[in-house]
Amino acid sequence: KINGDRLWDSLMEMAKIGPGIAGGNNRQTLTDADAEGRALFQKWCEAAGCTMGVDKMGNMFATRPGTDPEALPVYMGSHLDTQPTGGKYDGVLGVLGGLEALRTMQDLGVKTKHPIVLTNWTNEEGTRFAPAMLASGVFAGKHELDWAYDRVDAEGKRFGDELKRIGWVGDEEVGARKMHAMFELHIEQGPILEAEGKDIGVVTHGQGLRWIECTVTGKESHTGSTPMRMRKNAGRGLARITELVHEIAMKHQPNAVGAIGHIDVYPNSRNIIPGKVVFTIDFRSHLMDVIDAMMAEFEEKAPKLCEEIGVSLDWKISGQFNPPAFDENCVAAVRNAAERLGYSHMDIVSGAGHDACWINDVAPTAMIMCPCVDGLSHNEAEEISKEWATAGADVLLHAVLETAEI
Amino acid sequence: KINGDRLWDSLMEMAKIGPGIAGGNNRQTLTDADAEGRALFQKWCEAAGCTMGVDKMGNMFATRPGTDPEALPVYMGSHLDTQPTGGKYDGVLGVLGGLEALRTMQDLGVKTKHPIVLTNWTNEEGTRFAPAMLASGVFAGKHELDWAYDRVDAEGKRFGDELKRIGWVGDEEVGARKMHAMFELHIEQGPILEAEGKDIGVVTHGQGLRWIECTVTGKESHTGSTPMRMRKNAGRGLARITELVHEIAMKHQPNAVGAIGHIDVYPNSRNIIPGKVVFTIDFRSHLMDVIDAMMAEFEEKAPKLCEEIGVSLDWKISGQFNPPAFDENCVAAVRNAAERLGYSHMDIVSGAGHDACWINDVAPTAMIMCPCVDGLSHNEAEEISKEWATAGADVLLHAVLETAEI
Ligand SMILES: NC(=O)NCCC(=O)O
Ligand SMILES: NC(=O)NCCC(=O)O
Repeated sequence: KINGDRLWDSLMEMAKIGPGIAGGNNRQTLTDADAEGRALFQKWCEAAGCTMGVDKMGNMFATRPGTDPEALPVYMGSHLDTQPTGGKYDGVLGVLGGLEALRTMQDLGVKTKHPIVLTNWTNEEGTRFAPAMLASGVFAGKHELDWAYDRVDAEGKRFGDELKRIGWVGDEEVGARKMHAMFELHIEQGPILEAEGKDIGVVTHGQGLRWIECTVTGKESHTGSTPMRMRKNAGRGLARITELVHEIAMKHQPNAVGAIGHIDVYPNSRNIIPGKVVFTIDFRSHLMDVIDAMMAEFEEKAPKLCEEIGVSLDWKISGQFNPPAFDENCVAAVRNAAERLGYSHMDIVSGAGHDACWINDVAPTAMIMCPCVDGLSHNEAEEISKEWATAGADVLLHAVLETAEI
Repeated sequence: KINGDRLWDSLMEMAKIGPGIAGGNNRQTLTDADAEGRALFQKWCEAAGCTMGVDKMGNMFATRPGTDPEALPVYMGSHLDTQPTGGKYDGVLGVLGGLEALRTMQDLGVKTKHPIVLTNWTNEEGTRFAPAMLASGVFAGKHELDWAYDRVDAEGKRFGDELKRIGWVGDEEVGARKMHAMFELHIEQGPILEAEGKDIGVVTHGQGLRWIECTVTGKESHTGSTPMRMRKNAGRGLARITELVHEIAMKHQPNAVGAIGHIDVYPNSRNIIPGKVVFTIDFRSHLMDVIDAMMAEFEEKAPKLCEEIGVSLDWKISGQFNPPAFDENCVAAVRNAAERLGYSHMDIVSGAGHDACWINDVAPTAMIMCPCVDGLSHNEAEEISKEWATAGADVLLHAVLETAEI
């Protein structure tokens, strides 16, 4: 069993880096705070007897050697970057839970046939640079490295330049590593486990996602002196599509969700009718046909809703993945570990996207979830208990040990 | 008659300061560009034989002496500040048209009984610091000086600090000056004069305005893993109120307008359901009872629209004035001048708010409007012809001379 107090102390120590304004964290990817978090993580990994490798996307790989020089490593890990107003556990628990597993193996002098590698994936959150899970996506061959480098943040800064600036461009080719298996521990970020009173979610599937970046174009003009009949108000296009997205998702719920999180209004002046609004729709479902149906309804209706009010709509996909089904053997390893350790558990679908969803395409993968209070995440008030964190890391350790063969 | 070429050259010269990105201007109030524009204007006024006074709000007053030491001055003027994506004429024509009138008087050696004062009012636009017409409002006793100083921009900078920073805090008490009359020349910012083929709008009334700053509060949470039924999406509150504002204004049009121009979404991340949206509604009408009816309908319906979807609404008035009726004698002076000079004209209501709307409460006031292409304003593509500008400045000169008594 892992040491829950030590795990908790490390979580609290990491949370001091890039503090938020309401008890959470703002440690966005490729910021100075991200660099500081990475350095601390590296120090901890080396103290646990691991050697650190870094690839050209800044992905960090801490390796604990195995006994068989031929055996592929078993991976675990998640991400240390956070939302601008994020919690202390989203991603971080998976990385530091993995660290705690490594520390426990070191304490007990455990030897495994397969090496074990703990990963911190770069830019999982996707807020500063869309899309989310960018670096695991490059690793899995979903994106080109150069394309990833060219992603820009709201200030126009390039991903590649910022990665260089913080000093974390490694020399490994991205995706060159081969994996025996990969396990990601993560908080649920939803309300189900807490409501059902379960310690552990055995993640069998994930939701697929479509991010649709929309630009509604109207005509900037004076709010006072432009007659109502002459207006082309791009803000009304946003309003109508906001409600359309909600209606489409409600038709398919509980098998789908949809909302608009990011909105930029131009020129954003109290007495100018918006001439342009740019926003991103986030549609998800764990069923491929539901994703297709939502996209079809959006494509049919959204342009009409804009046309009716004299504004125009352009859109493009700025992030997407299809619903993943995790590897049966890895999922069984998680379920067995929970069972053996005596933790209550249930099968669950991941509502959020995770690095594991991409890695699942290139290696046998599974995820372990633990509850979070009120299902709240992507909010500084995100909270978990030390017991939940401990159970999650315990199951991670045991699933990894079973797969890595003691 | 004034010199239309000289007026046009000055307009083009001023437009070089704080250029926009699409042929217009970004010379927002209390920026370095604003300071540069002020310095040029002062230079020009002094070359035209005027002395410059500045009050504690940074309002600039260029005085041309009269022959009667007892006579109160006749004022003219408008504003040199622009929208972030503004045109070259909104406000600027009224200031530089007045300058051209002063230059013409100097050329012709005209003597008037009353002194003539040309004013550049600070922060008319209200984009950087709400409300609009801030400094003329303090002049007219509508706002306290300290309250005006405490207005903050989007970056949290205080109006008072920024006025000091650009070096334009004058020593005159604001509103200490008494006026015999005041005339403001301005582009229409609407489509009526052009459509009717008139050179001059004789402004008899203005629209009243209510700026309602709304804060919709929901709950920040994950777009992927928060079930639809558990969401409190503040963006949907914005969507519903956007459409409500439109419906309310449409009920009363053509006697009313309404829209939302400024919207801030928190935390504005693609995968976070908005927890808070702050935005400002702009309702206007030249009829007081229509303004009251719009406010009543908003107050009744908006909170319910939010409540129905589990979000809450707070709102406060962040700018307001009632519909002004301009002074009959001053209006007649404008109409007579247009008639005498042979310009086609019609009576008109101002759709936009103007410094003249506040000054009207403390001195006999009127406005002169000239057409603008397609009624477009608060847009870098705002355009007028040299002929229109010339006609407007001519009428301004003659209305002022009639009132100042040659
Ligand atoms: N786990 C998590 O919040 N990932 C961010 C990507 C997503 O939006 O699902
Ligand atoms: N003239 C003008 O655009 N003034 C700004 C104040 C308003 O919004 O009407």
